Amino acid sequence: MCGTDSPASINKSSLPSANGNDTRSPTCSPDHVLNLEQGDPAVFESYWRKMGDRCTMVISGSQLMSYISDFTNICWFMEPEFEEAVRRLHRVVGNAVVDDRYIVVGTGSTQLYQAALYALTSPGGPEPVSVVSAAPYYSSYPDETDYLCSRLYKWAGDAYEFDKNGTGPYIEVVNSPNNPDGTLREAVVKNRGDEGKLIHDLAYYWPQYTPIIRPADHDIMTFTFSKSTGHAGSRIGWAVVKDKEIARKMSKFIEMCTLGVSKDSQQRAAKIMGLLCDGYQNCKSANKSDDLFFEHTRQIMAERWERLRQVVERNQVFSLPKYPKQYCLFSGELIEPYPGFAWLEAKEEEEIDSQKVLRGSIKVQGRTGRRFGVAEKYVRISLLCNEEEFKEFLERLSTIKSMTSNGH
Amino acid sequence: MCGTDSPASINKSSLPSANGNDTRSPTCSPDHVLNLEQGDPAVFESYWRKMGDRCTMVISGSQLMSYISDFTNICWFMEPEFEEAVRRLHRVVGNAVVDDRYIVVGTGSTQLYQAALYALTSPGGPEPVSVVSAAPYYSSYPDETDYLCSRLYKWAGDAYEFDKNGTGPYIEVVNSPNNPDGTLREAVVKNRGDEGKLIHDLAYYWPQYTPIIRPADHDIMTFTFSKSTGHAGSRIGWAVVKDKEIARKMSKFIEMCTLGVSKDSQQRAAKIMGLLCDGYQNCKSANKSDDLFFEHTRQIMAERWERLRQVVERNQVFSLPKYPKQYCLFSGELIEPYPGFAWLEAKEEEEIDSQKVLRGSIKVQGRTGRRFGVAEKYVRISLLCNEEEFKEFLERLSTIKSMTSNGH
Repeated sequence: MCGTDSPASINKSSLPSANGNDTRSPTCSPDHVLNLEQGDPAVFESYWRKMGDRCTMVISGSQLMSYISDFTNICWFMEPEFEEAVRRLHRVVGNAVVDDRYIVVGTGSTQLYQAALYALTSPGGPEPVSVVSAAPYYSSYPDETDYLCSRLYKWAGDAYEFDKNGTGPYIEVVNSPNNPDGTLREAVVKNRGDEGKLIHDLAYYWPQYTPIIRPADHDIMTFTFSKSTGHAGSRIGWAVVKDKEIARKMSKFIEMCTLGVSKDSQQRAAKIMGLLCDGYQNCKSANKSDDLFFEHTRQIMAERWERLRQVVERNQVFSLPKYPKQYCLFSGELIEPYPGFAWLEAKEEEEIDSQKVLRGSIKVQGRTGRRFGVAEKYVRISLLCNEEEFKEFLERLSTIKSMTSNGH
Repeated sequence: MCGTDSPASINKSSLPSANGNDTRSPTCSPDHVLNLEQGDPAVFESYWRKMGDRCTMVISGSQLMSYISDFTNICWFMEPEFEEAVRRLHRVVGNAVVDDRYIVVGTGSTQLYQAALYALTSPGGPEPVSVVSAAPYYSSYPDETDYLCSRLYKWAGDAYEFDKNGTGPYIEVVNSPNNPDGTLREAVVKNRGDEGKLIHDLAYYWPQYTPIIRPADHDIMTFTFSKSTGHAGSRIGWAVVKDKEIARKMSKFIEMCTLGVSKDSQQRAAKIMGLLCDGYQNCKSANKSDDLFFEHTRQIMAERWERLRQVVERNQVFSLPKYPKQYCLFSGELIEPYPGFAWLEAKEEEEIDSQKVLRGSIKVQGRTGRRFGVAEKYVRISLLCNEEEFKEFLERLSTIKSMTSNGH
């Protein structure tokens, strides 16, 4: 999942352009708010620009017109080429078990999260099932769970709290690596017998962000095109599901919610994933690793983290999480995580509102820790912006010497 | 909206091919079930094939990657080119007022229907708001309203019944022309003061199906790419909305539901609608009306209805609705409606299950009247199939001489 929210009072000129071409001014004016609240994956655009025509999608006016892709598949609106590409991508990366698993396509992993809630609950229970996730949790889970005031399920907050005091049937969402703080996670609620069910949101479990420590093998795992290759505008996600009935119910949800998923985008995703995989099968032996998507983008993320840590350490106003090196099955090396977000914690005071200070003092828009179920001294900053914005962010951040003198 | 359901026990070989190319066998074997249950718009494919390269969509790998289209628009995930194309299309056709109205893009009109329910209700009411539509009503409204067991709204069935006996706040969905029976409709529930709100589902209010009797001008009107041009696989719909706050709430719903709408499909829809409109601006004077989308497809629908009425009148087993001619502002002529579905009523018996008889005797899969809130003697048959399937349907239908002797 993504971390994109509706617009606040954000200056348009600091945003990535809608058509994918970089039409911004060469330097960001210091008067403009630098919007790093959403996890818009602009950082990957330059890679795909470099790939040129090889990943250009061409669709004639008479193609892809039917609602139906394959009535013999439980997920009858899924393009067979998309399913094949998803399975191939996971086999190339080794980040999830796909053999003997069902694939369900969704309109982004946002829709698949809701499809999973629907599939894991049934009408007629005495109370809605509690949905929990360990704080700091992805800020959109509460709204996505509660906006329709369903009798099937309800948001119940922090999973640690529920583990201590909660009772009754529950669903725990395990987001790993976690948005906002980048940690690799496991389920928190323990020893509840049959009362608990799990959704694993693995949006960021890709080699540019994290070591691939094992092929994930959980009941319901969701992934998204937005964070794997950076194509958020296509609204494509998928779930890897063990149980046939769960896959059927998830597909039924998507049928009732949107009557399927854009075929144009499914075909485009299949083409782009296919090209990415071709790279590994054709080029790895030739040692041109900079042409390979995950090596290239991991390199960018690594450099950004190095530059960010330098600034943060120099001005001593915030701290960043420290991540242990772990062995990555994909790269065959011991490597550090490079999460898509900086999870900044103010050092100075317990009561400080870090989002407000950043917005007020250096005109950087992040997202407050409060939205993630924790204190306001935390703020999440997207590191998935383009290079110009990232540079501007570091420049502005380096001017902060103290949280109180700058922002109050 | 569309009328597509999940697969029953349907033989795949009778289905339109998923990739938009017609790969079926030249004749349908009589052993195969002919699936005319869904309103899959294959009939329009030949027109777009004829248009060739002019409506081919090309998207490079680095385009359309951002979540965001335009943060200054209430519907921030809507491509400006899509919005422009929608407004232009309505101005060319004259079927809806768009000046001083908000446009909201959705993942098909299925999603916009739910967005409208969300926008028209608020949490905390003593009871869910009743959602009604005059029977026979579109068969998916009940499921799309109730699948999440919302406390905001609940399906309450036939609007005529509610007008007589229902109480409290309600939302009436006016589907015009109506799916399944093709009638032009107005709201049914009367004299309730402020208690009632309306959604106008105008999926079929296009010149190939119906005379355009006036530019529709209602609070919330929904349309779909699936039924206007026949591109169901793209999952694109839009709403035309009078009130800013309603447009904002509908956009918020789509944000929480799917975090936007495929940009690939929005851009493709903009291109195809643009080409369609260009035709009217460039060619109408040249009198090449067969090249024009609505004239071409209306001609096909008119021929189908003529052939269908001949068969139905000859074998005297079913009756079809009769539609009055009305003056069409678009064509400037007095014309008949040619709905996308045949709404067949068995003449013989009150108790007969027409869907079962058609399935059993001639292996044609329709949808029972029961699903539309009326008697089983009614069955809905899609007329939007390709020509080969339509011909096969008429041949099979002409062999029925009696409902009882054939089907029991």
